[in-house]
Amino acid sequence: MIWCRFEIDGETSYGIVEGDHVVQVSGSPLGEHYNTHNRHPLRNVKLLAPIKPGMLYAAGPNYRGHVEGMAARRGLPPNYPDRPSPNYRSVHAIIGSGENIVVPKESAGAVQPEGQLAVVIGRKAKNVSVDKALDYVFGYTIGNDISERPWQQADRTMFRSKNCDTWKPMGPWIVTDLPPEGFRIIVRHNGVTWQDFSSSDQIWDTATWIHEISKYATLHPGDVLWMGTQGADGDMVPGDIVEVEISDIGVLKNYVVAEQ
Amino acid sequence: MIWCRFEIDGETSYGIVEGDHVVQVSGSPLGEHYNTHNRHPLRNVKLLAPIKPGMLYAAGPNYRGHVEGMAARRGLPPNYPDRPSPNYRSVHAIIGSGENIVVPKESAGAVQPEGQLAVVIGRKAKNVSVDKALDYVFGYTIGNDISERPWQQADRTMFRSKNCDTWKPMGPWIVTDLPPEGFRIIVRHNGVTWQDFSSSDQIWDTATWIHEISKYATLHPGDVLWMGTQGADGDMVPGDIVEVEISDIGVLKNYVVAEQ
Repeated sequence: MIWCRFEIDGETSYGIVEGDHVVQVSGSPLGEHYNTHNRHPLRNVKLLAPIKPGMLYAAGPNYRGHVEGMAARRGLPPNYPDRPSPNYRSVHAIIGSGENIVVPKESAGAVQPEGQLAVVIGRKAKNVSVDKALDYVFGYTIGNDISERPWQQADRTMFRSKNCDTWKPMGPWIVTDLPPEGFRIIVRHNGVTWQDFSSSDQIWDTATWIHEISKYATLHPGDVLWMGTQGADGDMVPGDIVEVEISDIGVLKNYVVAEQ
Repeated sequence: MIWCRFEIDGETSYGIVEGDHVVQVSGSPLGEHYNTHNRHPLRNVKLLAPIKPGMLYAAGPNYRGHVEGMAARRGLPPNYPDRPSPNYRSVHAIIGSGENIVVPKESAGAVQPEGQLAVVIGRKAKNVSVDKALDYVFGYTIGNDISERPWQQADRTMFRSKNCDTWKPMGPWIVTDLPPEGFRIIVRHNGVTWQDFSSSDQIWDTATWIHEISKYATLHPGDVLWMGTQGADGDMVPGDIVEVEISDIGVLKNYVVAEQ
């Protein structure tokens, strides 16, 4: 099933995508809901980020190639993580597919993409085993962890290097009932493929991250986990287009613009 | 004015504290609201954390004595921050005054308090000047940034060292219309004073933090900023009581217990 969140005539609703139409739903996929009789052509609605998470988790480095690529760029040996240490991103920075990534005036002007598998939690998860962890997943979507590398190196925290307004594109929708491994993740910059990797190359798989987080912190319905990226991408500047495509989910497409 | 959030007869409401009573309010202090005719003795209600933030910001090191105390403990020279770099805390980890701080089984068993002034944002703030920044503050409350130091040193992120369930006590209520400087902040462990400091010793004042954050990220109504702590406190273990008192606000009191 494909769940979206959309706006039409100034009203925001969840919906179920069926072919090139969307069935408007009353309520939320994670709570009580029912299908309405309203059915809209997809082209007539504005898709929004498919969920507003309570907390947005980002897997620390979760691909060996990302650790190696970032270290090489800095002239340092790779420092592989010894345990899953998630970080947080700002839920206020989330935008949907088709929206603008705004580069602030204070930036030197370039940002970089990180294509990521996004996992949406469906049920409260506390102290869950690796075996049962995926039972708590509602579905999967796509994230793009926009990053400003000079700030990332200069600052003590990733506040401004990863959390400026509009820097967390997510979408276009959530797909349920998918096999949890082997997603093919492609990052394209102005139509040119920059990354093409498999989620099977995660250092720790999704079930292990859920298990580990849940030992300390309850995961709540609607929380979202971004599972890390592969490689080290190049610079994007205003005027550029970035797409993240994941097999069986779809394409998350955004435009880079300068702050006015 | 003193705003609280409370539970009575299984129902959650905001309220205005008047002496030893609370006037029940319909709606939220940050949106439309009106006073109801319901008036409860304070002792009859269960106070909750006074706000559920969209994002909970924590000032990176913001007192020279904290930088020095933590560095001395680790046998390192103090590394003073060169700019405000906020971090995030989990909004799911927030509890109110009177509730239990639970130490997970995986911990070596001790946690440490950090008494902090908490600033509640009242209006959307983007690109605001230092001069105007405090116009965006709704009021002030108290936070206790519970920390597990072995995890803080071992991990890449502060996920489990600062964000386990129940580790973000906040309350007891929000006080509006206070002067923004010169709060006296006292941390007591089992009745013994561990810290007694002034918010005037912040490296950057509250207006500067709001200004700096708002250059990159919009602050939204209900977002909360914790302004950092002074010194380096000792260990608390299950059975202990911790209080943070701030002049003209009140006392945030919590109990340390072991996970069952």
